[in-house]
Amino acid sequence: MAQDPDVAEYLIAPDPQAMRLTRAVEGLDENGVATTIRVVEERPLTIFLNAQEIVTAMTIGDYPEYLAIGFLRNQHMLRPDDEITRVDYDEELETVVVRTARATDYEDKMRRKTRTSGCAVGTVFGDMMEGLGDVALATTSVRSSWLYALSAKINRTPSLYLEAGAIHGTVLCKGDRPLVYMEDVGRHNAVDKIAGWMLSEQIAAEDKILYTTGRLTSEMVIKTAMMGIPVLASRSGFTAWGVEIAREVGLTLIGRMKGRRFMCLSGEDRLIRDIDPAAIRDEPKRAGRKGAG
Amino acid sequence: MAQDPDVAEYLIAPDPQAMRLTRAVEGLDENGVATTIRVVEERPLTIFLNAQEIVTAMTIGDYPEYLAIGFLRNQHMLRPDDEITRVDYDEELETVVVRTARATDYEDKMRRKTRTSGCAVGTVFGDMMEGLGDVALATTSVRSSWLYALSAKINRTPSLYLEAGAIHGTVLCKGDRPLVYMEDVGRHNAVDKIAGWMLSEQIAAEDKILYTTGRLTSEMVIKTAMMGIPVLASRSGFTAWGVEIAREVGLTLIGRMKGRRFMCLSGEDRLIRDIDPAAIRDEPKRAGRKGAG
Repeated sequence: MAQDPDVAEYLIAPDPQAMRLTRAVEGLDENGVATTIRVVEERPLTIFLNAQEIVTAMTIGDYPEYLAIGFLRNQHMLRPDDEITRVDYDEELETVVVRTARATDYEDKMRRKTRTSGCAVGTVFGDMMEGLGDVALATTSVRSSWLYALSAKINRTPSLYLEAGAIHGTVLCKGDRPLVYMEDVGRHNAVDKIAGWMLSEQIAAEDKILYTTGRLTSEMVIKTAMMGIPVLASRSGFTAWGVEIAREVGLTLIGRMKGRRFMCLSGEDRLIRDIDPAAIRDEPKRAGRKGAG
Repeated sequence: MAQDPDVAEYLIAPDPQAMRLTRAVEGLDENGVATTIRVVEERPLTIFLNAQEIVTAMTIGDYPEYLAIGFLRNQHMLRPDDEITRVDYDEELETVVVRTARATDYEDKMRRKTRTSGCAVGTVFGDMMEGLGDVALATTSVRSSWLYALSAKINRTPSLYLEAGAIHGTVLCKGDRPLVYMEDVGRHNAVDKIAGWMLSEQIAAEDKILYTTGRLTSEMVIKTAMMGIPVLASRSGFTAWGVEIAREVGLTLIGRMKGRRFMCLSGEDRLIRDIDPAAIRDEPKRAGRKGAG
């Protein structure tokens, strides 16, 4: 089968045909006609750090090792200098165990909980803002032509979203090239899987752009900054606190990216406008209410 | 000022003009033109149950008392027979304290954590499925004409979503009438505020419909069932586990509700098709990628 030229650019692309990730469900449509649609799976995955059970995540179930590593790293349960000695995934038990060379200080982290503003009962272990003071993001430039190219490529990449809907996507990009496209029922999981991949493959962050289908909340901005990625872009909108943190840590923040339109609310001086927006095909204005992402 | 006829139907409608809920932020648009947009606030609210700190929620900040009561109830930290003696909200300290007549068993609940599949690092205290076995939902009928009427009314109700975007909405409805429309940066918060209002006002659940802008995940289905509401409807899509639970507990589940289109994946026998979908104005097919909700 000839590979889609768009997909060939990726190191990891979505796998919308994977049988394990979606399920055919029969229902009736508005006319009472029996219709089978594909819906995404949502299954538990319990993450252990050494002998300690940390959390049970609801996830589509791909890349459990990356999810576990990225989650533990983004929650500061894994320090940058922690050595991961082994990661064991047990599909039947729905568990993944991350083992480190030295003992970790997770107990301390589990004391404080902050419920974040994503779409679920969100809890971040530890102080959400912890470590942000040390973040020194690279002052990497981003070209508006890259943003348009990335949007177009990501939108036409075959994905679980296009296949079944009801799923979030996050894409790690470099210049105008999307590298790793992760999807999950939880937007946080998609980001954590990218963080886990970057950590496992020892990928530099300072020349990357993170693209998300979700909203630019404080949680997304903090995760991106903690991962050392200097640019965060989204089709969706902003929250005031997300903007505030982005400005504090020097993250370039671009949202409401649709067709030729976008808004840059932080890092304008690092945005190179190298293409006339009029040259970009615009999206028709939305017809009705859209999901908040 | 004459009241909008649509808004007059509500007991609680959104308040898009409330200064506390959005903030004007200046940025540059795609043409480099300075543009001020309104973005939603996202602020911490720490919930206490008696002397015990339970969680810090990120919320837009309206109805903190309903949010606290609904959260504690939906997490089974408040039992149906618990008597709430007092709720104290301190705006400056960003705390809300729910006091009960007898001691509650929250410690037990805080031991097990499940990370749910919404858009944030989601954690549900206690066993997510706890109590579901006891749920006996009313076999209430729902008319397709109500679903279309509710969609149309809710979509044109002035809201923070229409004003600033990046926010979720949940609406408690009865027949074709929307009663209480809550919005929040976290979809879970919007639902919890409705649960808190219902508990405080002792509102019957068995004749209600819950409408959400978000996806029909296991978490949303479980919350709705636990609240005793027999019908859940959304513009967004489904997850496989959400559908499975809905079928198990006998919840009528309707999703992908846009224009004249919808899919009923559970409770078809309780859906009365009293209007020809062809009579409903359809929405144009979406132009591009939409938020996953």
